[in-house]
Amino acid sequence: MNVSMLIYILGSVLKIEGIFLALPSIVAFLYREKSLAAFLVTMAICLAVGFGLTWKKPANMVFYSKEGFLAVSLSWVFLSIFGCIPFVISGDIPSFTDALFETISGFTTTGASILNDVEALSKSSLFWRSFTHWIGGMGVLVFVLAVLPMAGGRHMYLMKAESPGPSVSKLVPRVKQTAQILYAIYFVMTLVEILLLLLGKMPVFDAVTLSLGTAGTGGFGVRNDSVASYTPYMRSVITIFMILFGVNFNIYYLFLCKKWKQAFRSEELRMYFGIILVSILAITINITFNTEKFFPNILESFQHAAFQVGSVITTTGYSTTDFGKWPIFSQTILLLLMFVGACAGSTGGGIKVSRILIMIKSVKRELHTIVHPRARMKIKMDDRMVESDTLRTVNVFMVCYLLIYGVSFLCISVDNFDITTNFTAIAATINNIGPGLGKVGPAGNFDSFSWFSKYVMMFDMLVGRLEIFPMMALFLPATWRRR
Amino acid sequence: MNVSMLIYILGSVLKIEGIFLALPSIVAFLYREKSLAAFLVTMAICLAVGFGLTWKKPANMVFYSKEGFLAVSLSWVFLSIFGCIPFVISGDIPSFTDALFETISGFTTTGASILNDVEALSKSSLFWRSFTHWIGGMGVLVFVLAVLPMAGGRHMYLMKAESPGPSVSKLVPRVKQTAQILYAIYFVMTLVEILLLLLGKMPVFDAVTLSLGTAGTGGFGVRNDSVASYTPYMRSVITIFMILFGVNFNIYYLFLCKKWKQAFRSEELRMYFGIILVSILAITINITFNTEKFFPNILESFQHAAFQVGSVITTTGYSTTDFGKWPIFSQTILLLLMFVGACAGSTGGGIKVSRILIMIKSVKRELHTIVHPRARMKIKMDDRMVESDTLRTVNVFMVCYLLIYGVSFLCISVDNFDITTNFTAIAATINNIGPGLGKVGPAGNFDSFSWFSKYVMMFDMLVGRLEIFPMMALFLPATWRRR
Repeated sequence: MNVSMLIYILGSVLKIEGIFLALPSIVAFLYREKSLAAFLVTMAICLAVGFGLTWKKPANMVFYSKEGFLAVSLSWVFLSIFGCIPFVISGDIPSFTDALFETISGFTTTGASILNDVEALSKSSLFWRSFTHWIGGMGVLVFVLAVLPMAGGRHMYLMKAESPGPSVSKLVPRVKQTAQILYAIYFVMTLVEILLLLLGKMPVFDAVTLSLGTAGTGGFGVRNDSVASYTPYMRSVITIFMILFGVNFNIYYLFLCKKWKQAFRSEELRMYFGIILVSILAITINITFNTEKFFPNILESFQHAAFQVGSVITTTGYSTTDFGKWPIFSQTILLLLMFVGACAGSTGGGIKVSRILIMIKSVKRELHTIVHPRARMKIKMDDRMVESDTLRTVNVFMVCYLLIYGVSFLCISVDNFDITTNFTAIAATINNIGPGLGKVGPAGNFDSFSWFSKYVMMFDMLVGRLEIFPMMALFLPATWRRR
Repeated sequence: MNVSMLIYILGSVLKIEGIFLALPSIVAFLYREKSLAAFLVTMAICLAVGFGLTWKKPANMVFYSKEGFLAVSLSWVFLSIFGCIPFVISGDIPSFTDALFETISGFTTTGASILNDVEALSKSSLFWRSFTHWIGGMGVLVFVLAVLPMAGGRHMYLMKAESPGPSVSKLVPRVKQTAQILYAIYFVMTLVEILLLLLGKMPVFDAVTLSLGTAGTGGFGVRNDSVASYTPYMRSVITIFMILFGVNFNIYYLFLCKKWKQAFRSEELRMYFGIILVSILAITINITFNTEKFFPNILESFQHAAFQVGSVITTTGYSTTDFGKWPIFSQTILLLLMFVGACAGSTGGGIKVSRILIMIKSVKRELHTIVHPRARMKIKMDDRMVESDTLRTVNVFMVCYLLIYGVSFLCISVDNFDITTNFTAIAATINNIGPGLGKVGPAGNFDSFSWFSKYVMMFDMLVGRLEIFPMMALFLPATWRRR
């Protein structure tokens, strides 16, 4: 194992975090908040530790899949532990466990909160909460790859381990450039959303934080009612951008290259928009033609349905209304969408549309085998063959996912909350959504769980964001054995 | 497609059903019940149609995997449609949908009931209900193979399609003999249970019906409180036999051949008993050391815990108490066991321990690949390599299972019951258990669902019992296309 390289990467991540912490510090300065000290101290710690760890450049820059997984999982753990310090020092979230929960929830773009009263927080803490979404959305190691000079061609392992989806393709031959393009698209799209929200006369602070949360498909809000109290125009902008940030960023790169045909041929993209459309229509009809009246007219029903569907499938987790009161059919659709998740290569979580697509295709092949036992159909996606390695990994991913789900579900049941709460609490954390149903519904939060359950769900959030294997590698004895 | 062979098999199944119907007729005669006429009429119909369909022996006895799947799924549908006639004619269950639900629930050994008052039924109908469990437990086509003279060596396809588990092994080279041995073991074990229950002074009728229900891991009771009102001795006998009928019957054959070592080396067997033991202990501790008192002493807690664990993991579904009132931790264990299910090659349902074992091993292999990318570990079970075909089928099974689960869950949500009820109703039917939680808990039943939801769950029960693919083949357009 290349330990010195691992330390170097961790150091780089902390340096970047230190630099990122300048932004909430500026916010604290502008609003003349006491929390400024907390952010400056944390910034100093991050930079000091970061420079300390990267003092010596490792002689051997070569590393493999194992180190890639480890570097990613350790980076995320470090990032979160250092990232929660300002909350604790400033007294905004005095409990370390709660602060860590909130920070992991931020970086993993989950948006599950332990806060009962968001509005009591300082502006700078609110900003940092939302900013962690933005950092975690595209991935901090992707950022490291984009800005730091790193020699050697092995960095694809880092990107593979941090980027969501069954397979990662480089947009351009060089990893560094790929990372830069991704972050550029990400930055510009976030900026456009901020501008559109400002056009609708949203306060600057809200426009910036909500856009950061949308971009990372995170879901932390700055008001106690999430985004319910904004105007229909603002909610529509957020709806559209949530859905856009759930799209595979490769598609946007194809747009930039004017490869329209190739972009629109993407099966994942079509299925993603297909699911969204059908779900919105079904829910709109269900909540409109119901004995209980939820909204004054069908247009408003449509707007709320679209917002909730966009929020859940992209695993953002904003809400405009308590859908826990909707008919069970609508709730069930949303519950199922929690598992589907967004596209691979987006900032969203969940199982991912492309995995679902590959799984459906493998079922089709199996059924074909029943009728024609000797013919072996090939599984294709976007006219290219799906490699057997990808297929195997998708299957193992699903199995791991179910096993971790089951064990977590059992673990948190010791708190003796009802089954719907427990089941959706795990769904909301492992899929990086935020709110679930029951006690953890849009109107509730995760505060009432025991510290044990909170740590279980922190693990699940990391497992969800990093797609299982990096976190598993962290707990594998064989990883740490010296050979 | 060999249609004449398909018709011949269906005819044989109906003849067997006609003969089986003689037993409830005898019960009706003994108890001098009006329902005698209903059973005799149905018997006549089955025999008439059966002999009609088998009048002409097919010239070509050869058939393949596709016909095997179709023969099995169609047989089960026919079996259920004809099997529900006595309930309708006798007026015990006047609605056709409800009668069909009850019959499919019987044959698939689910034990989910639409009856509010079981004790109002005639003895002969109660007997037929329990007897369908026994027939469905080992499989009607296995019975056909055991008794009817069938030439050609292709009948393995039938057995494969009807027997639960990821792979079916013939005990002896000839399929006919294998089927005979299986039914012999099954018959003797059922007999032993009846005798043991009679020894405890249980009424003959109850002893016979409950044993039939235990043997098939079905779960239909003859009293409104399931088996709560029997003595601790009787409940212990039932506990032990439920667990025994959840064991792979191959193990019993190994016992018969005195291959003790080979039998006890079975990894599935060990894991099955391991899960049972750990679950019983965990639940016993949980319900004993609880603020709320459930039972007077730890021994009684243990007995009830053992009964419920045995009942749920083997997917029998009897209950001695309403575990919906137990702490959520205990309920969650039982909920997870619903999915684990019994051993392959047993009469139980669920995903099956061996599939779980294979899946865990595939995860282990994947993690091994992270650390040693170039080494490709082989997956072994009982010291034999798991073929890649088996592995693929297990994965596709899981995916199909989840997809059908999700769609069914969505379908029945239109009835607007709570999510726990819906989620566990599908769990209880697709895993062939019987009761779930909430409205369909041990104290409830499936009567309140709409006819639409009932048909969805009938499909799920068949999907669960026949392990998906035969039922999928039935709905595949390619199956019916003439080439």
